[in-house]
Amino acid sequence: MEFNIKNDYFNKAISEVSKSVSTRTTLPILTGIKIIADTDGLTLIGSNSDIIIERILPKSNDGENMLEVLKTGSVVISAKYLSEIIKKLPNDIYLKVNDNQSVVIQSEEIVTKLNGINGEEYPSLPKVNLSSNFKIKSDDLIDIIKQTVFAASKSESKPILTGVNFSFQEELLTCVATNSHRLALKKYNIKSNLNGSFIVPSSSLIEFSRLFGSCTTEIDIYATETNIVFKSNTISLYSRLIEGVYPNISALIPEQSNTIITLDTTQLLKGIDRASLFASEWRNNNINLQIIDKSRLKISSKSSEMGQIEEVQYIKGISGVDELDISLDGNFMMDALKAIKEDEVKLCFNGSMRPILVIPEGNEQQLQLISPVRSY
Amino acid sequence: MEFNIKNDYFNKAISEVSKSVSTRTTLPILTGIKIIADTDGLTLIGSNSDIIIERILPKSNDGENMLEVLKTGSVVISAKYLSEIIKKLPNDIYLKVNDNQSVVIQSEEIVTKLNGINGEEYPSLPKVNLSSNFKIKSDDLIDIIKQTVFAASKSESKPILTGVNFSFQEELLTCVATNSHRLALKKYNIKSNLNGSFIVPSSSLIEFSRLFGSCTTEIDIYATETNIVFKSNTISLYSRLIEGVYPNISALIPEQSNTIITLDTTQLLKGIDRASLFASEWRNNNINLQIIDKSRLKISSKSSEMGQIEEVQYIKGISGVDELDISLDGNFMMDALKAIKEDEVKLCFNGSMRPILVIPEGNEQQLQLISPVRSY
Repeated sequence: MEFNIKNDYFNKAISEVSKSVSTRTTLPILTGIKIIADTDGLTLIGSNSDIIIERILPKSNDGENMLEVLKTGSVVISAKYLSEIIKKLPNDIYLKVNDNQSVVIQSEEIVTKLNGINGEEYPSLPKVNLSSNFKIKSDDLIDIIKQTVFAASKSESKPILTGVNFSFQEELLTCVATNSHRLALKKYNIKSNLNGSFIVPSSSLIEFSRLFGSCTTEIDIYATETNIVFKSNTISLYSRLIEGVYPNISALIPEQSNTIITLDTTQLLKGIDRASLFASEWRNNNINLQIIDKSRLKISSKSSEMGQIEEVQYIKGISGVDELDISLDGNFMMDALKAIKEDEVKLCFNGSMRPILVIPEGNEQQLQLISPVRSY
Repeated sequence: MEFNIKNDYFNKAISEVSKSVSTRTTLPILTGIKIIADTDGLTLIGSNSDIIIERILPKSNDGENMLEVLKTGSVVISAKYLSEIIKKLPNDIYLKVNDNQSVVIQSEEIVTKLNGINGEEYPSLPKVNLSSNFKIKSDDLIDIIKQTVFAASKSESKPILTGVNFSFQEELLTCVATNSHRLALKKYNIKSNLNGSFIVPSSSLIEFSRLFGSCTTEIDIYATETNIVFKSNTISLYSRLIEGVYPNISALIPEQSNTIITLDTTQLLKGIDRASLFASEWRNNNINLQIIDKSRLKISSKSSEMGQIEEVQYIKGISGVDELDISLDGNFMMDALKAIKEDEVKLCFNGSMRPILVIPEGNEQQLQLISPVRSY
């Protein structure tokens, strides 16, 4: 294998693939990036136990020649050293693999020799069925991820809850994440007639957002029993799926509420943030919400040792019972509000011991539930 | 005590003082900031076992009214909560201390109550002799700090070497730092006729650079047997001094050299950085310098496991013996080169087992020494 390549072009692709490469693994080959050079260009592959990233580098980019393949072949090179070397080299890169898998990387007067591993030894990619797929704009999928993934569980005690459930039914995609104390749900209308339910690890979705966050592109999604693939023209992200049946959450969502109040999203977020100042002294970051004078919301928290904070915000609209006193986890409420783009938000209550429903004003596609905590 | 103050003005001062406040201390009062309100304005004081920062807030700043003192007095408030509250409050601040040391902080509809401590209980500041002092521009002192402090020892095994030695003699200030493997020396001409030698902790000097880095101002320096004070119009930084006698380093600096080469500072820094890629596999981050063809410098490092890197740079000038092969710690060389502002640098050698002298071209006020390491 032998090629010349523009530094920036190579560097960017290596950094995209590097993120998926294991640093702690017993298999030395998985700490490397597999580089395949063929007549069309290069392919870089990196993987860990959860995801695989495959990055295709065509010979030209926006009409500019970026790459010249002098000899086809493949090799696996330490991701850590490859990325550090390419970052520090000043100019175009010449890379050549000798018969003993010794890799020469050269730029101007600088010559680096790295010990590579035969590319044939790298594990092969999982097979996917290319006939059954679903198309979505990368921006839309990143929005869905942002509005759900934070609510997934961080604890491995219930592995199913560490992922986001993607469920396709009759032209509707429903994404749900929950840690059993809070829940985020987002609906998205689709054109294809796919059916099925997949639990995708949160870490893979966060990696998707990172990889595709900088530009809008069409994404094809393919799934098998064990894997899901997010594929654009130049990048494929393979992720394992979490095994198991996702809990049925439809029974959790109240159909009507005793009290519904409308508030300014940004002001409420700032208020909760301030009230959380002393809330951190509690195990559950407790803050208290109370309707006063039937028209205002008092947000407060206190610590017996340090002090207390309280503020009053005007309620923009109220319906139903106009008395309420409820405590909840301020961090959960902040996460919920950060996921809402709309200027106004509706909080729906069914008393101080039942979950609060958080809904963006005028958007029926997104909802969130937060369980109250006992106040002391 | 009772006053109104502009949010930004208060916020900035709190954040300046906060950095000096202990978070881990057995004395609760030292986790707080002392606020003193008198007819001229506010004074904020924060301290830890090494430094004290005293910040004066006059009633007006650049002709604008910033502060209105309604009642004089003093109080100590938790630095952590005070800074978080002020950061999150939206507008001008009203602060009042009640008789039971309960502090009310208010902004718009937001009311915070914090438990304060009586200001009289805060330890008093060390006394300094204001008659014997030395004036320097903050920028010049920051330059001196940047060019020396990195070479001080990080290990507490020899406390004297963890500081920078400021030595005043006959209109010359000489600053030296060394960890016994490398040394940085900077001379600075002064007008006063101070005499004496002080060892200032590196952490205090780094704190000085942080505090005074944003604007140029005149600094007065006062010293006693145990303390040094850096004082501008609005900020005083008190630091303890390190006890003991600093080693005499004049004997370490070679008066002449067998080989002197001149190189481009930036290119050499980049080359050493690249060569350090594999050097990290060594205990001492070894890189190798070798003069080849009497006109070029080969910079290289290798790792038996991963590979090797080498490059060749043109020597701009050479005098003395034109053969050399020496190994040294790449990190020490990079630190030395980063402290040099000049475009060209002279490396002076006395064989492969003697320290290298690093001198900026055309600047006799700054020099550095780096001991070689044995190559394996």
